[in-house]
Amino acid sequence: MLHIRDMALPVRIASSALADDGAITTAGDFHQWFSQCVEKDESQVTRIPFSELSGWRFEEQTGNLVHHTGKFFSVRGLQVRTENRPVTEWSQPIINQPEIGILGILVKEFDGILHCLMQSKMEPGNCNRVQLSPTVQATRSNYTGVHRGSAVPYLDYFLDAEPRHVLADVLQSEQGSWFYRKRNRNIIVEATGDVEVLDGFCWLSVGQLHDLLTVDDLINMDARTVLSCLPFSGVGLCAIFPFDAEPLRSGLIRSISEDQGTLHTSSQIRSWITDSRVREDVETKLVDLTGVEGWHRSEDRISHETGTFFDVMAVDVQAGNREVLSWTQPMIESRNLGVVAFLIKRIRGVVHALVNARVEPGYLDVVELAPTVQCTPENYTHLPPEARPPLLDEVLSAPPDLIHFDTVLSEEGGRFFHTRNRYVIVEVPPDRDIEAPNDFRWMTLHQLAGLMQHSHYVNIQARSLITCLHSLLREPKRAAG
Amino acid sequence: MLHIRDMALPVRIASSALADDGAITTAGDFHQWFSQCVEKDESQVTRIPFSELSGWRFEEQTGNLVHHTGKFFSVRGLQVRTENRPVTEWSQPIINQPEIGILGILVKEFDGILHCLMQSKMEPGNCNRVQLSPTVQATRSNYTGVHRGSAVPYLDYFLDAEPRHVLADVLQSEQGSWFYRKRNRNIIVEATGDVEVLDGFCWLSVGQLHDLLTVDDLINMDARTVLSCLPFSGVGLCAIFPFDAEPLRSGLIRSISEDQGTLHTSSQIRSWITDSRVREDVETKLVDLTGVEGWHRSEDRISHETGTFFDVMAVDVQAGNREVLSWTQPMIESRNLGVVAFLIKRIRGVVHALVNARVEPGYLDVVELAPTVQCTPENYTHLPPEARPPLLDEVLSAPPDLIHFDTVLSEEGGRFFHTRNRYVIVEVPPDRDIEAPNDFRWMTLHQLAGLMQHSHYVNIQARSLITCLHSLLREPKRAAG
Repeated sequence: MLHIRDMALPVRIASSALADDGAITTAGDFHQWFSQCVEKDESQVTRIPFSELSGWRFEEQTGNLVHHTGKFFSVRGLQVRTENRPVTEWSQPIINQPEIGILGILVKEFDGILHCLMQSKMEPGNCNRVQLSPTVQATRSNYTGVHRGSAVPYLDYFLDAEPRHVLADVLQSEQGSWFYRKRNRNIIVEATGDVEVLDGFCWLSVGQLHDLLTVDDLINMDARTVLSCLPFSGVGLCAIFPFDAEPLRSGLIRSISEDQGTLHTSSQIRSWITDSRVREDVETKLVDLTGVEGWHRSEDRISHETGTFFDVMAVDVQAGNREVLSWTQPMIESRNLGVVAFLIKRIRGVVHALVNARVEPGYLDVVELAPTVQCTPENYTHLPPEARPPLLDEVLSAPPDLIHFDTVLSEEGGRFFHTRNRYVIVEVPPDRDIEAPNDFRWMTLHQLAGLMQHSHYVNIQARSLITCLHSLLREPKRAAG
Repeated sequence: MLHIRDMALPVRIASSALADDGAITTAGDFHQWFSQCVEKDESQVTRIPFSELSGWRFEEQTGNLVHHTGKFFSVRGLQVRTENRPVTEWSQPIINQPEIGILGILVKEFDGILHCLMQSKMEPGNCNRVQLSPTVQATRSNYTGVHRGSAVPYLDYFLDAEPRHVLADVLQSEQGSWFYRKRNRNIIVEATGDVEVLDGFCWLSVGQLHDLLTVDDLINMDARTVLSCLPFSGVGLCAIFPFDAEPLRSGLIRSISEDQGTLHTSSQIRSWITDSRVREDVETKLVDLTGVEGWHRSEDRISHETGTFFDVMAVDVQAGNREVLSWTQPMIESRNLGVVAFLIKRIRGVVHALVNARVEPGYLDVVELAPTVQCTPENYTHLPPEARPPLLDEVLSAPPDLIHFDTVLSEEGGRFFHTRNRYVIVEVPPDRDIEAPNDFRWMTLHQLAGLMQHSHYVNIQARSLITCLHSLLREPKRAAG
């Protein structure tokens, strides 16, 4: 049964997205609070050689990098055989973390506006140490107490949620190039009673979060993926937006709220995804880290012989306000800035994003929908020019007035060290044709939202960019010139 | 964009479901044609010891049963560790068949009624040799010519389908107790031009197929799963059904066609599935067949020490009308008849089926929705009484007037030898409360159809039963007494 509350939900979310000054936290309050959080952070993160890892070791026979409890995660090898790719066979280190963590945002209405309880959280991989994260961001090891830390605050809101207070609840994948079949539970729960605001937490409207998305390295990856699952789409959304919005914004509103005006039907999109999964003949196999070819282990890093892709390295963390006070851990470090971009286009007045059916070896189901461009340009320098990702140059050479979003954001600071991407949204003028290969399709945000109710469809980078696209709802973009 | 053709599709399918005498094949024609197919079949299937397998062998080191090409499938071991189950740790033989096959039904309109092109097909595991199968039922090895057979007829209709002629196209799982992460592409394509009817093929309306479902061992498993993917659900369906249908039938029509009247919202159902996947802590690992404990290999079978579950055995096949004329192969044999049943109930006038979030070790994503009961009762004889599946006795003791469907149907005859289940649909009177554990939920057919547009949600047994439920649309069930 469709409850009245369900029907109103997209409207409530859209109202929160339009509230760029919160009902209980002003922009000024936020900046003061966040500056204090940054000041209070006394963490020290130091690169260390592997030999200084404590509790972690390279297993003698396999070479795998493991924790002595067998919990958390391990760094293993992955052997990949594929077709239709520039490189058809390779092996690589990969993070194996079979347990499913929770990324949860608690929301609550204040003065008729939904607010998200956000946390200022130190993560060792963050280049600026403290970023804004969901209410709860916990691995199963965290919350079952494997590392003997303190209890995870607010966790019970998510574990014991009343079904009718759950606004979103779906397992979503993470980076398929670095993780083997990792996924986290993305969950949003509405609180009805009083909620105590603990030190390090703050209520912000969706509009405020969208504003803060334009600040480099502030809204962390986990917050972006959970926010992308907010059920924006639905009936009645158009009613609260001005009808005279400029074309891009009104095209975006239609793209989010309507089931109409799509270039391909949703059934055609699903058939295309099925076809991609059948055609892409990818075999992957977890192997021992010693069996990985082309990668070399030195005292303090495991790197590819070309110096590209990523490194496995280790850090020592001294932290005052984390569940445990100090620890060491391995991390993944990507040396170069990546580019993650959507080309968008108004088609019959409705904004469509160009998505790519992308193979990453760590995906559970072969292919997920990725942004138009998702790459680290430097990784292609040792490959022939025809291996260069399609449409990368379209993004890099876009004129400024067609770039609607352009912020450098960090990947998860718990596993990735100083690993950042430039997130970009570039508009293609309606009269301009883009030649895209068969593994690309123009889709509306409503179609993407439909798929994001399920697992294994929309990858983590695309989900981040969808949150960025939602952020364009908040104010008209100045016209060209 | 929702095309007029899409909106009309559920109505066209429902019209075909109401046509119990086809426009081009009468019931009499069918029986004559099918009898001839059975007569013409000269196949001989003989149990053989493993030593007489040709092209297949037990690998020396691993004990795995493999084909010399490395293609088709292999029989390996699976190690399973789980919680919340009567047995928390076991290993078992399992079929590993990583390639994705095609199960396709070609449909075409004759005199305004959609017809399905069905094939009379001999499969070595069928107890009665010949059953009715989809237009195309081919493994990738089949259609890429690994076994040097003749080309698969009608295959190109599916490989080169125009997107707008594809009525369904989704990867669906198969038995998670016997297959490791196997899935097939279930695809339905509408032909527009003339279609030559080859020997062994026949056009039947959906209503005719539903009629034939009540014949034991006639509509094969592959036909049932593809038929279950027919997009019945949609607007306008009620229009073509009589408003004065008796309560069960009208409750079924509402269950299929409407998004309303559900006990739980679809969002709540998805959240419950997410929760099940997180809570069920299942670890599986492919291992060598020699590493499987409690199973013993004799000359002609691999069986469990208790004599229950299933056997791995081998057959010699001499066939006149298959792609290759004779071959040998391993198969799975289940010795006892299984029970696969839905309890259904009219809730506020809308039929709901009681589904079970079920763990099977071969599933790609931990849990899939299964029928209320799915078991081989004999397998529980060596376990304590509390391990007996919930609600089994409710099904077995149902009075005849509440049993709306009851037919013995075969599992896939290409892999399973004489392996059959009794498919049952039992109604629970509206005023009767059923106590079901938390891994059960009442769902409408519309909700199940929504999930079946995606992979890894509804298991093969439940999909078979959904086709059986659809078959109840065709005529009023006689009232009790």
